[in-house]
Amino acid sequence: MALPDPARLSLNTATVKKQWTLAQAIEGCARHGIRGIAPWRDKLAGLGVKEAAKLIRDNGLKVTGLCRGGMFPAVERRGRQAALDDNLRAIDAAATLGARCLVLVVGGLPAGSKDLGGVREMVRDGIGEILDRARSAGVPLAIEPLHPMYCAERACVNTMAHALELCDELDPGKGGALGVAVDVYHVWWDPDLRRHIERAGDKRLLAFHVCDWLVPTTDFINDRGMMGDGVIDLPLIRSWMEHAGYRGSHEVEIFSAKNWWKREPDEVLGVIKRRHQEYC
Amino acid sequence: MALPDPARLSLNTATVKKQWTLAQAIEGCARHGIRGIAPWRDKLAGLGVKEAAKLIRDNGLKVTGLCRGGMFPAVERRGRQAALDDNLRAIDAAATLGARCLVLVVGGLPAGSKDLGGVREMVRDGIGEILDRARSAGVPLAIEPLHPMYCAERACVNTMAHALELCDELDPGKGGALGVAVDVYHVWWDPDLRRHIERAGDKRLLAFHVCDWLVPTTDFINDRGMMGDGVIDLPLIRSWMEHAGYRGSHEVEIFSAKNWWKREPDEVLGVIKRRHQEYC
Repeated sequence: MALPDPARLSLNTATVKKQWTLAQAIEGCARHGIRGIAPWRDKLAGLGVKEAAKLIRDNGLKVTGLCRGGMFPAVERRGRQAALDDNLRAIDAAATLGARCLVLVVGGLPAGSKDLGGVREMVRDGIGEILDRARSAGVPLAIEPLHPMYCAERACVNTMAHALELCDELDPGKGGALGVAVDVYHVWWDPDLRRHIERAGDKRLLAFHVCDWLVPTTDFINDRGMMGDGVIDLPLIRSWMEHAGYRGSHEVEIFSAKNWWKREPDEVLGVIKRRHQEYC
Repeated sequence: MALPDPARLSLNTATVKKQWTLAQAIEGCARHGIRGIAPWRDKLAGLGVKEAAKLIRDNGLKVTGLCRGGMFPAVERRGRQAALDDNLRAIDAAATLGARCLVLVVGGLPAGSKDLGGVREMVRDGIGEILDRARSAGVPLAIEPLHPMYCAERACVNTMAHALELCDELDPGKGGALGVAVDVYHVWWDPDLRRHIERAGDKRLLAFHVCDWLVPTTDFINDRGMMGDGVIDLPLIRSWMEHAGYRGSHEVEIFSAKNWWKREPDEVLGVIKRRHQEYC
């Protein structure tokens, strides 16, 4: 298949979060000819949303996603309301940035709860509550199914199938306001991945995140690999995405305490550009 | 719902593998009134299969499963043949023990491979190769879907759905020679778990393994929790198993380097008996 289009490369700022501020990451992307960026809200708060939007625009970048909304479940109603309020602020920020989507990491079991079914209902209800605002703001919501190993603590939506069921229920018309973020790290193992990507289709494939699964993996969160260093067949999954109509970015998101977060970030961006061509 | 029947409790010897030999585990179960045991083959080799079978019988225990066969994939044909030969030996050992099933941990990606689809075909073919022997030996094969976090290194069958598809393909008559081992640690997160347990039904539900998922979990393999110490709703899953017709054992399998493997094993068995009643 064809090499990946370099113009689709995007940097999720988590990849250099220990080294760079958001302003430095924006300028780094521009310097390296990386045309997309996906900021996290903690860094965004540091720079200011309007200032960030201007700096991104001035540097000719597009925002391939804002990380993140979600985290809906809470035992108390007040906690759930606070989460909704925070999601509305995230939608506003994403709109100001002109982000392609707001990524939703939906949240896991609140402390003390074993009621996975009930928590999943909270997630569905939470997304339902914010969907109108997202629609009117022109910010699609991208449910990111997280690897099942994060079910308890981070996200109780762990498969493409589940994420797409939520889309079908909450946005049956496939209007484009609700879809999925496909991160290879979370879904590469799924024997039905191809079918679910196809089922999602162009309208619901809102983001494509790449990295690699290392063997062995030594930390549950911060031991992701650079593309090519692990076992994920990235060109195969990209081909499924493209066959389903996806024409968006290839966003590189690597949490790596022991390797990439320790390197000089300009070196990291150089490696990303090469690996994108060689292994994606 | 009714409390779990104490007579269904079984000890997977991995739970005390650092402390006890197989002979000690057999005698420990008898001493504590635990009526089932599931040995691992490394310990079995130490005692001898016939000697183990006799000691288990003399102590009035039943063997709820033998761990483990599987590990089918290999790049070279010779490696795959060696795996098949080893599985045939495991079937013979399971028959000698009168084991309820041989648990299959099917294997992951061979070193250097990213061909997950191809490796899954090797697994299907491997199970197909040994099924006749298992059937004639009267040893049901229990495919154990492992948590997706083990996909690369241990088992590329990671969901009940996938395991049951293999059953449908290889044993369409549901003759009882092929089924699944349901280990809550591996499948608790699955939003379709109830449906798949129901679909499996009595004929294919060959084993039920219990432990708990700790929050946080700090090691990919050896940080399982004792029932009640984590977030899994064990009575709910047990109710699904029983509703589907399962009348087998509740086998306790806990890999725990920092806790249970460090305790006095008679204490561990006492805790297991109480927690089985309180939390399963």
